[in-house]
Formats: sequence, structure tokens, C-alpha cells
Amino acid sequence: MHSVGICGSDVHYWQHGRIGDFVVKDPMVLGHEASGTVVKVGSGVTHLKPGDRVAIEPGVPREMDEFCKSGRYNLSPTIFFCATPPDDGNLCRYYKHSASYCYKLPDNVTFEEGALIEPLSVGIHACKRAGVTLGSKVFVSGSGPIGLVNVIVAKMMGAAAVVVTDLSASRLQKAKEVGADFTIQVKNETPQEVASKVESVLGCMPEITVECTGVQACIQAGIYATRSGGTLVLVGLGPEMVTVPMVNAAVREVDIRGIFRYCNTWPVAISLLASKRINVKPLVTHRFPLEKALEAFETTKRGEGVKVMLKCDPTDQNP
Amino acid sequence: MHSVGICGSDVHYWQHGRIGDFVVKDPMVLGHEASGTVVKVGSGVTHLKPGDRVAIEPGVPREMDEFCKSGRYNLSPTIFFCATPPDDGNLCRYYKHSASYCYKLPDNVTFEEGALIEPLSVGIHACKRAGVTLGSKVFVSGSGPIGLVNVIVAKMMGAAAVVVTDLSASRLQKAKEVGADFTIQVKNETPQEVASKVESVLGCMPEITVECTGVQACIQAGIYATRSGGTLVLVGLGPEMVTVPMVNAAVREVDIRGIFRYCNTWPVAISLLASKRINVKPLVTHRFPLEKALEAFETTKRGEGVKVMLKCDPTDQNP
Amino acid sequence: MHSVGICGSDVHYWQHGRIGDFVVKDPMVLGHEASGTVVKVGSGVTHLKPGDRVAIEPGVPREMDEFCKSGRYNLSPTIFFCATPPDDGNLCRYYKHSASYCYKLPDNVTFEEGALIEPLSVGIHACKRAGVTLGSKVFVSGSGPIGLVNVIVAKMMGAAAVVVTDLSASRLQKAKEVGADFTIQVKNETPQEVASKVESVLGCMPEITVECTGVQACIQAGIYATRSGGTLVLVGLGPEMVTVPMVNAAVREVDIRGIFRYCNTWPVAISLLASKRINVKPLVTHRFPLEKALEAFETTKRGEGVKVMLKCDPTDQNP
Amino acid sequence: MHSVGICGSDVHYWQHGRIGDFVVKDPMVLGHEASGTVVKVGSGVTHLKPGDRVAIEPGVPREMDEFCKSGRYNLSPTIFFCATPPDDGNLCRYYKHSASYCYKLPDNVTFEEGALIEPLSVGIHACKRAGVTLGSKVFVSGSGPIGLVNVIVAKMMGAAAVVVTDLSASRLQKAKEVGADFTIQVKNETPQEVASKVESVLGCMPEITVECTGVQACIQAGIYATRSGGTLVLVGLGPEMVTVPMVNAAVREVDIRGIFRYCNTWPVAISLLASKRINVKPLVTHRFPLEKALEAFETTKRGEGVKVMLKCDPTDQNP
Repeated sequence: MHSVGICGSDVHYWQHGRIGDFVVKDPMVLGHEASGTVVKVGSGVTHLKPGDRVAIEPGVPREMDEFCKSGRYNLSPTIFFCATPPDDGNLCRYYKHSASYCYKLPDNVTFEEGALIEPLSVGIHACKRAGVTLGSKVFVSGSGPIGLVNVIVAKMMGAAAVVVTDLSASRLQKAKEVGADFTIQVKNETPQEVASKVESVLGCMPEITVECTGVQACIQAGIYATRSGGTLVLVGLGPEMVTVPMVNAAVREVDIRGIFRYCNTWPVAISLLASKRINVKPLVTHRFPLEKALEAFETTKRGEGVKVMLKCDPTDQNP
Repeated sequence: MHSVGICGSDVHYWQHGRIGDFVVKDPMVLGHEASGTVVKVGSGVTHLKPGDRVAIEPGVPREMDEFCKSGRYNLSPTIFFCATPPDDGNLCRYYKHSASYCYKLPDNVTFEEGALIEPLSVGIHACKRAGVTLGSKVFVSGSGPIGLVNVIVAKMMGAAAVVVTDLSASRLQKAKEVGADFTIQVKNETPQEVASKVESVLGCMPEITVECTGVQACIQAGIYATRSGGTLVLVGLGPEMVTVPMVNAAVREVDIRGIFRYCNTWPVAISLLASKRINVKPLVTHRFPLEKALEAFETTKRGEGVKVMLKCDPTDQNP
Repeated sequence: MHSVGICGSDVHYWQHGRIGDFVVKDPMVLGHEASGTVVKVGSGVTHLKPGDRVAIEPGVPREMDEFCKSGRYNLSPTIFFCATPPDDGNLCRYYKHSASYCYKLPDNVTFEEGALIEPLSVGIHACKRAGVTLGSKVFVSGSGPIGLVNVIVAKMMGAAAVVVTDLSASRLQKAKEVGADFTIQVKNETPQEVASKVESVLGCMPEITVECTGVQACIQAGIYATRSGGTLVLVGLGPEMVTVPMVNAAVREVDIRGIFRYCNTWPVAISLLASKRINVKPLVTHRFPLEKALEAFETTKRGEGVKVMLKCDPTDQNP
Repeated sequence: MHSVGICGSDVHYWQHGRIGDFVVKDPMVLGHEASGTVVKVGSGVTHLKPGDRVAIEPGVPREMDEFCKSGRYNLSPTIFFCATPPDDGNLCRYYKHSASYCYKLPDNVTFEEGALIEPLSVGIHACKRAGVTLGSKVFVSGSGPIGLVNVIVAKMMGAAAVVVTDLSASRLQKAKEVGADFTIQVKNETPQEVASKVESVLGCMPEITVECTGVQACIQAGIYATRSGGTLVLVGLGPEMVTVPMVNAAVREVDIRGIFRYCNTWPVAISLLASKRINVKPLVTHRFPLEKALEAFETTKRGEGVKVMLKCDPTDQNP
């Protein structure tokens, strides 16, 4: 392994031992945003060889069920997933993974870019499910790492204007840096007021809202804000039960769609990174050698920066 | 006008003078499930002539806005719609309507079938938005008139199995008659228990749920019941705010989609009625001459039968 | 193995030793329309056990490549496929197959229905690619076995009217039996004349044409016949190069889409067969025990009947 | 009127008096790539007022038929279209047009950008029909004005790599300038050789080919070049009948889709131009006052530059 990013879920398992129904019962290796170098391949592997630099897609379906066969393998109930208990992650020196889910990195794509494909994939999957297309006006609710990748991806897909909301001015500043056209710092507004501000800065209601906070009031704002016939994508996860203006969404045919991780995103991301059309490097704000993992986790826990990278190869700590 | 069906919304306006934000402020003609005979056409009309029997689509966009241009004219904010205040309906003897939204009935389609295209259209639009297709397993929640047309349409679109739930055994009996494969009479079950029963009778979770009651517990059951990657369509309208297990829907990528009336359904419905592949005649359980409109409305208000027809042509009271 | 149908391609390999680039170089077992009973399963198999009756999907991807991951495994270049050289088929007594591509048959579905899922799948895949939906008017060109399954499937998917053309009155009679609304016996008509006749019997141009002959003049007729904005699906395969009125198709936005076998069709077909909504039994016109395979192949070669079944289980020759 | 671009079809009507079945029988005003200033509006118009700067969509459906209602108004057989006989175009000083098809230009979008929305729309419609999306590899065949707008639009929609072929080095140079990643100057290659070169420079077969020449050999190359499961969009129009490797396309499920003009593109284009995310200004290489229209047409006829603009407002000849 070369570079492994720390995700909020890693910190959550570390601190709380569980996320929803997923409970850590035995010692578990963390890490699922990863890239490394192939040291050995199985006898049937033809597309990789030792020495190849690869990005690792952490979810690998165990069975070829109907979800897999129809192209939605992320929904397969028996899927293996790095660092979701009881499956070990890849924040370590050496790690074995299904070759079909290891993707060769072109020479002009760095290991860290390879590791960042994982969070980028969340944005790709969300924006694809949202139907972002040429000329879309997009409202991204929340300016954390996932909000930011959604801004990047939405712009890449041809969005004409992206507006981002957040409580934090510094996080909104980051959104500006990665391409947001407008930002709105929210405070005590009602959901309807947020919707109204979004329409005001865009000059029209957005066809698409990508909700990245999971907060009930934000989901409500997402419904009110989205244009009739549009789509609200739920990326952030909050409490199990939420109260929403469902009739408002229903009679305006605003579709509500969630996402579960991603599928079919690595080849897309690699093509984009290789083409130099997308720049995710600014997302990495901290680096630590694997030996200082604890310090790295503490940094992420404190909410500093955007993405913390752990460098697993003692002989190469470069990006 | 020849035949005009009474809809629950007609009764609602009659009794309460409003539905949500739509308030009856001036006298308004009711009726929007209608068919009749052309007596006169404008100079630019080429597809119709006096004597033609026609079904009437009640919604007519007033402006060629972006919704209209992109094929979703039902969402056009300036749409004219029969018997939605302040627009008059067509429960009367003579009525003027945009020729583009009057569809010629083939000889083998009756006036009443023509009038029933309106409720049938709700089912067509809902099942299209749901993505019902060959082999679908479908859960229809609610066995009133709208539930029934969804059963009919889902089966027509190739659904392999349709299960219907309702509180009333007699309404479920009607569902059986129009083609439901299974019915479940619900009582005090929790939403999860309803979902479990649906899975049990189908032998698997349905890919599609069509919710026709608007009741909060039923929407919840619809989310729990729908297979990962499937779709819940909201047809019934209930309270403005509802509490739902949104995370459950989101992480299983169960899409939630509402419908607003319908669009592009009349030609489809006429083709099907002409082909004799669909039988909506059993839906008409009562007929009254226009003079006995009050009696007809009282009947619908009492919840008797399925569909009450008013016969507007004193010289022809046939179906 | 219990029942294995004979396909035209089986006869072609037997007679000519090749189809296009696929050349039989070594002895090869034929047969890919098959069903049987599980006698043994691998240690990782959980959804099947000895004694289960199963239908067999003959194509099994060897690698989890991008085609597989995105739900189009039929296009995977390394796919294993029964009786496509050099891969052996399953016209034999015992046969080993990937458990993921063996589908348990419900008790109310016969072995022969299970074997017929293969040709039925061609119709399902073609009609899905064609976008057949509620109210579609469909033109099926050619009334051989594949034309017939397309008639059956198109009607199941809600087509309002299906018209079939063929040179042979007896084959058209079969089309009528399986549900065609109209048939046209063609002879020396030009492609434009065929298109005109199709429009005439339907009362409008069909949105969808399913071309099952591969003959150049029929492909041309398919283009002329299809309504603007519609789809022509190419199922029949003819000469490598064909001359077509491409501008006519292009400027009317008539899409031309081919199919390669099928994917994701077995579960759909089993649901439909189990629901008794689809009747493929009339397609079987001849049965032979495995010992009389030569006689069976001669029968198919002579073009007699529709589908010839070989019965591989000496203890059970029932349907 | 302010700015009107000259299209190849304008020159064709001028020189030959016809394009296919469209024959100029009476004097006809040319021009359909246009923008201007509103001087007067009808009594029902609310979204425009005198003084508004507008871009003009040249096609206006005359009837609200099924094509219009379903969002494909470009296919409406009775459509009015500027400068397609017998309908007059708008290369003149004053012109009357349906207000619904006049789109207000934001202050930061010039008249010439407004006029260029027409050719840009061809690219938008083609790339939408092609399904260009994030990470797509795209092959654009032909580097004339229409090829160039397809390059621009494909990149805007997230294409990872675009390769363009042409006979002319200077036209390919223009493709580079507007964003093509690769260019290939073709000469005597066979279609298969072109396909092979395209795969070679991209490192893989493109999912999408946009054919802008109409030449038979180029259509053939487009089929051979496109990846299995991909799409070939035909934009260029050549001879009525062409010979193509249809089986190759069919068995690899390469869809062949034409385009007819465009629909629903003006609002998209205006959003993009307003966002400054797209730069079409370099396409304008020549400008002439309306009085020198003949000279302007001669220039276009000689194939000089890319786009020639006629300036219709004697008081304002600015871009």
C-alpha cells in the first residue's frame, strides 16, 4: 500500500465502534481510500502484473446476484467492503484484494489521486443519480469533503451554476476554490428561506439538489428548493426518521433518490484524472507516515483541513 | 358533453370549497373526467370535425414554457385544468376546449370508456414513473379507484405479480376482479409488518410500490417494502408533513417519486381501449342523468361503488 | 439434463461448422436452450441444492470486466457461451455450469418452459432494447421462432397492436395464434410498399420495428416503416454489409439498435412463467429422446414446426 | 435583427434552390442563426418586452401534436422553420417570431453568442442523443463547424478525451484550439484503419462517435470504431442510401442514432454562455454588414474561416 485517506467513517468506527447496524466486534483494520503497488497476482489475472500502480475499489461483491448482473453491484447484500465490519480495510503495508477491483493508474496519475478516487466516486455516483447534465443548475447542501467532490463533479458534468450552502465560512471558501459559482452561509434560516436564497442567487430554482449533511432541516430545504420535475439526491445520512414536506415534493414531481456508496466509477475517475481535466490535489491538506496514524486520526477527528493522507510505504512518502 | 365521471376531488370542492391552496372563490362548474361529441371546431382545426366523438384531456398548458417543450406539460405552472379553481370543468351540456386536447374516439370505444381515460391516466402516469416493466413485482397500497387503475395498468405493462393492501375486504375484492394476484387486508400492523407480509405473499420484495392512500404509515410501509434499487411512487396525497424512514430508503437506493396528474396518456389509453386489451367498464357502478347530479354526488360522497357517471346528453344515456 | 431445445445456430454449426468468425475446430457438444435437475453443488453455493429443478442461462462471463460491472455482461468479450466454439453446450446427460447462471424453477413451471426461456430471452432483450411499452404499436418483421417470441413479449409489455410480416402464410398463422393483431403476407413488395401496408393496417406508423430476418430489403422496410422518433431493433442477422436509407432514419431520429443475445432475462421470464401470464408451450411442436438426436436435428433442418425438444432424461420424458 | 450567421444550408439553397425534398419555389428570405432586439410584443406575452435582447430558435411547431407534447417538437411534421422553404428566414432588418421561441439574453452574453446558439444547439442535441457523460471517450468525425461545436459540447459534458479526424490539417488545427485532445489527419485509410488509429490514440475504443461528414466511408469507420455497447450519432448527411457493416454494429449493440436539428437547447446554451464556461467567440471569423450579404455568402461558399456573421443593425455592428 502507498497512500490511504482517512474518511469520517473510519474515525466513527474508531471512536464509537459502530455505524448503525454495522458493529465492530473484533479487531478490524481501517481504511478504504487507497492506492498501492501490485506485488503479486493470482494465476488467472491478465490485466495486472507486479509493479503496476493501482487504485483500489473497496467494495467487491461476493456473489453474482441480480444486483451485480444488472450493473448495481453496490446494492448486493453480500458485498465485501473494506473497513465495514467485519471486513478488514487496507490501511496497512500489504493487502490482498480482488484483481477485478484494482485499477491500473496511468503514469501521470499520482498515488494520492488514486486514493482520492474513493471520495470522488461518491460525487460521481451522486451526480449521475441526480442526472446532472449540460446547463444544470445545482444546489449542493453542505461544504464538507463530500459536498466539495460534488461541486467538482457537477461542474465537470457541465453544470452551468453550482451554489453551496454551509454554516462555516471557511468551508464555503473551500467550495469557491474547487469551483462553486455561489456560496450562501446559512445560520437560522427556515428551510423555505434557504430555498428562497438559493433561487435568488441562481436566478431560478435548481433542477438538482445534492444534500450532503443529513440534517432534517436541510433535507426539507432541499425539497423546497428543487424545481418541479427535478431531483433531490440524499448523500448525507442523519437520523433514521425525518419529517419532510412529502406532498410538496410529490405534486411537483421532485424525485428523492439516495445513494449507497457507488458503482462503475473508478474507470471514469481514472480517465478524468489522466486527462488532467479534474484537479483533486487541493483536497489533501495533511500527510502522515503510517507510524503516526494516531496523530493523523486525531487531526481528522478535530475537523482540521479537508483530507488527511496516510503514507504506508516507508520508502516513498511522495504524493 | 355525453358522459362525465365524478372524482373525489369534485366532491371535495363541493363539500369543502378548497383543496390545499386551490380555493373556490366564485361559482365553478365541476367535472374533468369527460367525453362528448364535437359540435363545432375552430378554423385552424384539421384533426377533428363536427360529429366526432372525443375524450377530453382536462389539462391544457396556457404557455409553451420549458416544461411543455420538454414533454412534461403537466408541471407547467400556468396550466388550465378543468374544475380546479378558478377554471371551470365540463360537467355540463356544452363545453369549449382546446382541440389539441380533444382526442377522437374510435368507433369501438364507448363514451364512458372515453371518460374513464382520465382516472386511467393517473394509473398510466404512475406506472410509467414507477418504471413498471416486464416481470415486475408490484405492491399497490390502497384499493380505491386509483389503486384499481394502477392494478390494471401494472398488469398491462407486464407485471408478473401485483399485491394490493387495504382496510376493506370489499375493496380488495374489487382489486381481485380487476387482476390483482394477491390481496392483504391490513388492520393494526406496523409499517414493517405490512412490508413483511407483502414480501411473504410475493415470495420476494417488490421492485415497485404504488402508494395510493397518502397515509403516513402507508408511505412508511412503502419504503420498508420496496426492494433495494426499486421505486416508491406516491399517488395518494395526505398531510403536508410526514415522518418517514428516509435513511432506509436512501441507503438502499429506493427512489421516491410523486406524480402530478399525468401527461401524454390519452393516445396510449385510446390505443389500449381500441385494442380491447384493457377492460375498464366494470369500474362504472352507477349512472345518473345530469338532472340528478346532486344524487350522484351524494352517492360518491357516501363512498358507494367505484365510479359514478353523469349522463349529460338527454338524447343518449347509453354507456 | 432434462430438456434441451434445438436452435437454428445448432443446426448451422452441425451443417457448416462455423457461424461468421466462430469456427468449430474440435468436437463440440451442441445445445444451449436447456433445463435440468441439480445433482451436486460447489461448497460456496447457497441458493441451490441437489434436487432443484433449474433453467440454465448459457452465457457466463469469465471476467468481471467493465461490461459485467455495468450490467451488460452479454457484451463481455471473454464470455463463455454454450455451443459457441470452442465452448461445449449442454445437450447431454450431465453438465457442469456456474451456479450463478442456474435459476431455480418454481413447481408450476415445467422443464420445457425452462428450456424455452432461452429463445424467450431473445424476445425480452429485443423488446427491452426497443423500448416497447404501454400502448406501443409494433411491427415484427419475420414470423419464425424469434419473430414469434417477440410477438409474445411485445404483447406482454403492453403493446396495443402488433403486426407481423412473412412470406409464409403458415408461419403467419402461428403469429396469429400467439397474439399478433395483424399479419401481412409479403411477396414482391418494395420496402416502401411494405412500410405503407404496415401503416395501413395499424392505422398509424409503428413506434417500434423488430426485424427478425436479417434480409436487406426487410431492414430497409423497417427503416421506412418506423415512426419518427421510434426504434428499429435488428435481431435477424444477414450479410455483413447492407445498403440502407440511412438519411431517412437519421433525419427522422429513428434509432437503429442491434442485440447480442441477452442479459438479465432469466429472472424476468421465470416470474412471468410462474404467474401463468405467458404461454410458450405451443411453441414446442416436436419431441425426441436424446438417442434420436439426429432425427431431431433433421426435423429442425427441414424447417418443420417451431421448436424441437430433445429429452435427455431417460426416466422422465415429460414436458 | 442584430446578428445572423450564415449556415451551409443557406448557401446550398442560394446555389441549388433545394435540399432534398425541400425546394425553393418562391422568393425566400434566408437566415436562421439569429439574434436581435424586441421592438414589439403581442398582448399575451409576459416574459419579453421591447428593448429585450433575444436569441431566436428558428423552429416553431404549428400544432401541439404528439411530438410536441412528448418533448420532441423538432420532429413535428408541421413545424415552421426559418429559411426552410417555404418558410422565410430572419436575415433581414425586422422579423416577427413566436415569443415562446425568443429567449432573453443576459447582459453578459453578446448578440453574436446569441446567434451562435443555433449551431451550438446541433452539438448539444447530438451529444445529448449520444449520451456523452462524465469520462466519455468521444470520436468526432469531421472538423467543420459542426464537428467543432461537438468537440466543445462533448468536453463541456465531461468527456475525458475527444479525438477528431479530418482531411484538412488546418481544420484539425481549429479542433485543437477549441479543445480536442487528439487529432488524426486521414487520407486514404480504410474505415477499419481509421477505427484502429482512433483506438490507438485514445488507448481504448470510444464509447461514442459523432459523425459529422455524411460520407459513407466515415459512417463505416464510425461503426468499426465505436466500442461495444456504445453509440454512433449521425449528424452529417450524405447520400440517401449507404452501405454499412450493419451486423458489426448490431451484434456489438452499437446504437445508430440520427439527429434532426434540435430541441430544448436554447435555455441550456444561454445558461452556459452566461456562466462563461463555454467560449464560442473564436468561431466567428468574418463579419459583414447586411448590405454586403452577397460578399458574405461568397466567403462562406469558398469555405473560408469558420462562421460568417451578417450585421443587420446599421447602428450597431458590434459582436
